[in-house]
Amino acid sequence: MQLWLRLPLEKSEPMENESEDTGYGSLGAALSDSWESWNSFRLLCEHSNQLCVALDIRRSLPSINSLFRWFGEPVRAAIIHTDAFLTNARGYPCLSKRHQKLITSFFELSFQVVISGQLVHSIPEESFAVFPSNDNDTINEAAPIRHELKPYVDYVAFLYQRMDPLSEQERFEINYRDFLQSPLQPLMDNLEAQTYETFEKDTVKYTQYQRAVCQALLDRVPYEHASTSQTVLMVVGAGRGPLVRASLQAAEETGRKIKVYAVEKNPNAVVTLHSLIKLEGWENMVTVVSCDMRHWDAPEKADILVSELLGSFGDNELSPECLDGAQRFLKPDGISIPSLYTSYLQPITTSKLYNDVKSHKDLAHLETAYVVKLHRVAKLAPAQPVFTFVHPNFSANRSNQRYTKLKFEIPFDTGSTLVHGFAGYFDAVLYKDIHLSIEPSMPTTTMFSWFPIFFPLRSPVYVPSGYQLEVQFWRCCAPSKVWYEWCVTSPVVSPLHNVNGRSYWVGL
Amino acid sequence: MQLWLRLPLEKSEPMENESEDTGYGSLGAALSDSWESWNSFRLLCEHSNQLCVALDIRRSLPSINSLFRWFGEPVRAAIIHTDAFLTNARGYPCLSKRHQKLITSFFELSFQVVISGQLVHSIPEESFAVFPSNDNDTINEAAPIRHELKPYVDYVAFLYQRMDPLSEQERFEINYRDFLQSPLQPLMDNLEAQTYETFEKDTVKYTQYQRAVCQALLDRVPYEHASTSQTVLMVVGAGRGPLVRASLQAAEETGRKIKVYAVEKNPNAVVTLHSLIKLEGWENMVTVVSCDMRHWDAPEKADILVSELLGSFGDNELSPECLDGAQRFLKPDGISIPSLYTSYLQPITTSKLYNDVKSHKDLAHLETAYVVKLHRVAKLAPAQPVFTFVHPNFSANRSNQRYTKLKFEIPFDTGSTLVHGFAGYFDAVLYKDIHLSIEPSMPTTTMFSWFPIFFPLRSPVYVPSGYQLEVQFWRCCAPSKVWYEWCVTSPVVSPLHNVNGRSYWVGL
Repeated sequence: MQLWLRLPLEKSEPMENESEDTGYGSLGAALSDSWESWNSFRLLCEHSNQLCVALDIRRSLPSINSLFRWFGEPVRAAIIHTDAFLTNARGYPCLSKRHQKLITSFFELSFQVVISGQLVHSIPEESFAVFPSNDNDTINEAAPIRHELKPYVDYVAFLYQRMDPLSEQERFEINYRDFLQSPLQPLMDNLEAQTYETFEKDTVKYTQYQRAVCQALLDRVPYEHASTSQTVLMVVGAGRGPLVRASLQAAEETGRKIKVYAVEKNPNAVVTLHSLIKLEGWENMVTVVSCDMRHWDAPEKADILVSELLGSFGDNELSPECLDGAQRFLKPDGISIPSLYTSYLQPITTSKLYNDVKSHKDLAHLETAYVVKLHRVAKLAPAQPVFTFVHPNFSANRSNQRYTKLKFEIPFDTGSTLVHGFAGYFDAVLYKDIHLSIEPSMPTTTMFSWFPIFFPLRSPVYVPSGYQLEVQFWRCCAPSKVWYEWCVTSPVVSPLHNVNGRSYWVGL
Repeated sequence: MQLWLRLPLEKSEPMENESEDTGYGSLGAALSDSWESWNSFRLLCEHSNQLCVALDIRRSLPSINSLFRWFGEPVRAAIIHTDAFLTNARGYPCLSKRHQKLITSFFELSFQVVISGQLVHSIPEESFAVFPSNDNDTINEAAPIRHELKPYVDYVAFLYQRMDPLSEQERFEINYRDFLQSPLQPLMDNLEAQTYETFEKDTVKYTQYQRAVCQALLDRVPYEHASTSQTVLMVVGAGRGPLVRASLQAAEETGRKIKVYAVEKNPNAVVTLHSLIKLEGWENMVTVVSCDMRHWDAPEKADILVSELLGSFGDNELSPECLDGAQRFLKPDGISIPSLYTSYLQPITTSKLYNDVKSHKDLAHLETAYVVKLHRVAKLAPAQPVFTFVHPNFSANRSNQRYTKLKFEIPFDTGSTLVHGFAGYFDAVLYKDIHLSIEPSMPTTTMFSWFPIFFPLRSPVYVPSGYQLEVQFWRCCAPSKVWYEWCVTSPVVSPLHNVNGRSYWVGL
């Protein structure tokens, strides 16, 4: 059973008896915000997944930030009233630009669109025939009776048809939308062939790597030494070879000579790697090393260390620990590609994901981070940087433990919000100005290897309008595992999540 | 293992780096309140019962309301610094009146008192011998070495010895302090002999009943009819007879003639009742009816209906339902004693009770009301009336369902608070101005039959300084049971507690 709450999208006038004694502070003022009504009802009902929303849309719309909140809520239908429509030059109903944009967003989020109300436009009679008939309930074949709201439906259908078709990437991602995946354990487990295959298809990513290697080779070997100097390049975590290929292409492109070591711990991947090298005739240039980079005793030191160990949250697949191990065989002036990466976080409203996490009815799932293609989500504030790692890092007292406190300012015109957790991203500097990024404000376009990560909160946090959201994050390291802990400390204090990595950790 | 957090009782100065960016709103300003530090730490630790507090007490004290908050917290020790002491006329240390009162409260709450710091008073040397020595660690029998802080200890011991001894009632209640008891199910279960015995000892209560019956008899039967008119008085729920005795004494005192029906459903109590009547020679005046008052077919109608069916929360032992059933045999102008009762609620901080409730690790215990002698409790705002019942109630559309919304203003100088639940009380009008009450502002003194009731919250609610606390309560009735539902709706929205009486109900 599902219960739909029908709510106005615009701010409603407070009811008589409410306006008298709304108390004080921003809570009182916000009583007329229909999102507040929804939120209170939903919280009284323990955030039940049987509650949904149908939004009534009229002529006036609230601020964009205020609207965005609904994108993270279980809205099932948008009911557009005929009085929300304007009239175009030909006398037909149409919607304002803001309404159009909103309805398009609704289609993207798969909200049902419903037309409601009386015919309030006087459509020119003769032009009725212009529209092809889709009515099934025609009584008379000769003179089909049209539904009087058909002009409105036709207009909304027009908006739908006008939308851009899904890109290849979107078609690929559509089945992953709001689907929680446990993050990989790349050190403890070996990847599946299918996983390698998916990752290898991300041409944008490897193009960036190739550009980075090109630039590094050019910087390292001046033109006059190109034919004499050989650069030792080690791909650590070579998998089935995409970075080996990118590196060799970079060498060819720049006319620099390179010697490649391809270090890979997964014996299955090593088999495929050997085949690739034979197939491509790279035997003279590439040495395959079947070994964990942290324990390999390298025969010589590298000029360039190339790796793709980043997770959705940058360091979450233990790139720092792996590269700290691998830099033993990097020359003191050697280059690591990537050379730096930073994780990012932003608070989000996501009823669907929270309910999915909660449905497991245990603590562990509420303290685990998930990889997920975020879709029905309201992003409440710009993402902020969290932890940064630089490679190589030869400092004596280096540590991969981190702590930071973030303060998010939610735009005032958003109104109050409910924070279900945090979306995590990364931005990596491969080399100089060549980045890989999934941070929403500066993403590497059409790259699809990484979905965001989602850190849930055990209980959603209500942030009254105008309040700051303060969150604290730790990256903790022990001999056999690495994990995050997190908590909210304002406007309320949450429990500390994932204490001692009890629920979620990545094994070393 | 227990962890004690040592915290200053006075407001501390904010640390350098905190004062810069405390955000806005009252949260920022409250950062220097040590209770806030404690509360944040405790919430991060999921309200662990292993966390305790030791308070450092200096010369200056915060406001009384702010201090009170600690009375509901797991404070184990109060550390009085020697610089908190003043100097009396004879050169000895003493404490300000406010400090004295505070230390006395600490003794009442069994906080350990510790003296700390340097000797800052120059005690007259010769007078040292005035104090008897209690030291065990004397090195030299002839010249015992005194601890230099002994004058402070002596003063604190003096404060302790000066306290009033426990009253009889307090000695009776001491073992019940902060001990949760499930409320009675008086309709479904029969009371134990022990329970009757305890209740019957409450002479104050029966004196009030006797006064009420006296007044009712005088009002009902004018002096000139005293010898001719007989008043029919029915004790419904007579138990082992205390109200029968009080009624007969009232008749004797007023010189009015009464005929008593003693209606009791518990067959064990009826046996004792018969013995009492025989022993006292009341056979001609009292008729015992072994029957549930709701189903008794009375041979005549009563002038006065006397009952003691009230629970700690007034109507919570279903007095309304019982008296609605019994008023069938009350004359239209008859009197019910009690004639009216009102329940009261107030928000409280009570770490101990919350942890006790939580320790059961199930939802049911968090949605159950408990009878409890509140002791380590901070009462955060004056109690407010909740539900009122009037008897008799002959209106056609009477209902015992109730709903109310309460808004508590927590005094501004309290600071922020954590609400663990609500203490419930009742005030009953037996007749005219004769009350029985356990409401803290107007209690019937030395009456001990009722402890307060405690309605817990599933998660404690943090109320920032200056915010209102809004709570909603329902009394719900079904054919076979009655129950309460409750929720907080401001400053945050809690789940609705005890939906459909799933966790806690009283059977009809």
